[in-house]
Amino acid sequence: MSGPVEFLASPSETLRVAQGFQLGDVDPDATPGYAGGKAEGVALLSAQDSKLAELQEMLFACGRFGSDRRVLLILQAMDTAGKGGIVAHVVGSMDPQGVQLKAFKAPTEEERAHDFLWRIENAVPGPGMVGVFDRSHYEDVLIHRVHGWARGPELARRYAAINDFEERLVQKGTAVVKVMLHISRDEQRKRLLARLDDPTKRWKYNPGDVEERAFWESYMESYQLVFEKTNSPAPWHVIPANKKWYARIAVQQLLLETLGSLGLEWPTVEYDVQAERLRVLQ
Amino acid sequence: MSGPVEFLASPSETLRVAQGFQLGDVDPDATPGYAGGKAEGVALLSAQDSKLAELQEMLFACGRFGSDRRVLLILQAMDTAGKGGIVAHVVGSMDPQGVQLKAFKAPTEEERAHDFLWRIENAVPGPGMVGVFDRSHYEDVLIHRVHGWARGPELARRYAAINDFEERLVQKGTAVVKVMLHISRDEQRKRLLARLDDPTKRWKYNPGDVEERAFWESYMESYQLVFEKTNSPAPWHVIPANKKWYARIAVQQLLLETLGSLGLEWPTVEYDVQAERLRVLQ
Repeated sequence: MSGPVEFLASPSETLRVAQGFQLGDVDPDATPGYAGGKAEGVALLSAQDSKLAELQEMLFACGRFGSDRRVLLILQAMDTAGKGGIVAHVVGSMDPQGVQLKAFKAPTEEERAHDFLWRIENAVPGPGMVGVFDRSHYEDVLIHRVHGWARGPELARRYAAINDFEERLVQKGTAVVKVMLHISRDEQRKRLLARLDDPTKRWKYNPGDVEERAFWESYMESYQLVFEKTNSPAPWHVIPANKKWYARIAVQQLLLETLGSLGLEWPTVEYDVQAERLRVLQ
Repeated sequence: MSGPVEFLASPSETLRVAQGFQLGDVDPDATPGYAGGKAEGVALLSAQDSKLAELQEMLFACGRFGSDRRVLLILQAMDTAGKGGIVAHVVGSMDPQGVQLKAFKAPTEEERAHDFLWRIENAVPGPGMVGVFDRSHYEDVLIHRVHGWARGPELARRYAAINDFEERLVQKGTAVVKVMLHISRDEQRKRLLARLDDPTKRWKYNPGDVEERAFWESYMESYQLVFEKTNSPAPWHVIPANKKWYARIAVQQLLLETLGSLGLEWPTVEYDVQAERLRVLQ
């Protein structure tokens, strides 16, 4: 046996939003850059777990020794698209000590009393950490646009504020990885029915999800606008997600490439190793 | 093949601190209640990962549906005893969404301006969550006693405050699991040397650890006092930890028993499943 089937083309290239990108052109069933099927994908995910964990540990170690580098994974998606699965099966392979996960729900009263980025700023990862946002500040230009809670000039203000905010993150050493998991409306129907049909999954079903589902096209338009307005300084990646196994290996690969690109090394310690050996042996 | 080798006697019984307990009687090399060796232990840990993850998901689901139940695992130990490994390999098998991990370091200036339980209260797990304290309020009666930063009446005040605090947690539905990982002084020496000898582990070595090591006996006395003063309402478990694989399966087993004892079931939803099916199918 040779090793697991790997990506032929890197998701950071193939899935990256580029000039002229149209969300409508993306096939949610596709598996760009990957020639294997489900069995191969599941095997790849598992085979790369320890590699991701090692890079993350190295990032964490560097953070302890004064490095500013950190990673922020931003996950956006329609309901049932698989954010939870990414967190459990991709993020979950890293050491919890080095992961800072924040799920953004409907804002609290205190949060609503501040500008929309206030609660986001409070949750950015510390040095050496991998931060994960399950939903994010992008809700403020997605659901808010869909329901008309923010319009024209206010939306423009928010796009600009988001770009400023992310620019500052990048300047301070944060690698920002932005991901939209893209499922089809039909796939969402299947997954909602699956939740209803399985007593161990019914708790995940929220009748409100069906109401949002009615605004599908408006959400897709809002995502398209997000990609046009906020693709710099940190680019978006749109990941076909009808196949859960594909979405997971694609996000894993993005994290591997991102961490790999930081040129991490184990920190050089300042103490005298031989002298410390003697102290321990005393 | 039959399944993995399981515990013969439950760690919640065999490792629990009872009347007359003496820390000095515990052999850090022992594997109480477990007849298998390392290979069997490693296999058991892996075999029970998904069971622990399922119970934790059920707890999380119940938390979403109004249940007050939650779990708090408190980890205390001498340096190198393996807290980090417990977090990575036992806690790490649960879904990060349902785990609230807090590592307590030397207190910040703001934290020092408050009473010692202030930062602890701020970190208790929410409903449905598994909280994990890597170190805890017990540092305030351990390192503080060892170095004389707190003495007689102040220590007595702290023991009492800790008991009151934990009593309140238990009353509000928190299952508190208190664990001391117990290694020998010789084993610590081996592990410190191993950190010095491996360039990928040197960042974990802190010259200050050797200074604390000189106070070993005073730490053991302070732990003994902790067990005598704070074993109720939530009992301590002292886990022999010279064998890392044993400490991990013992903590995993404690969590499995604790979660298992909560009588968890998947929540009953309030919506009409058939009506929702029709709405989704529209």
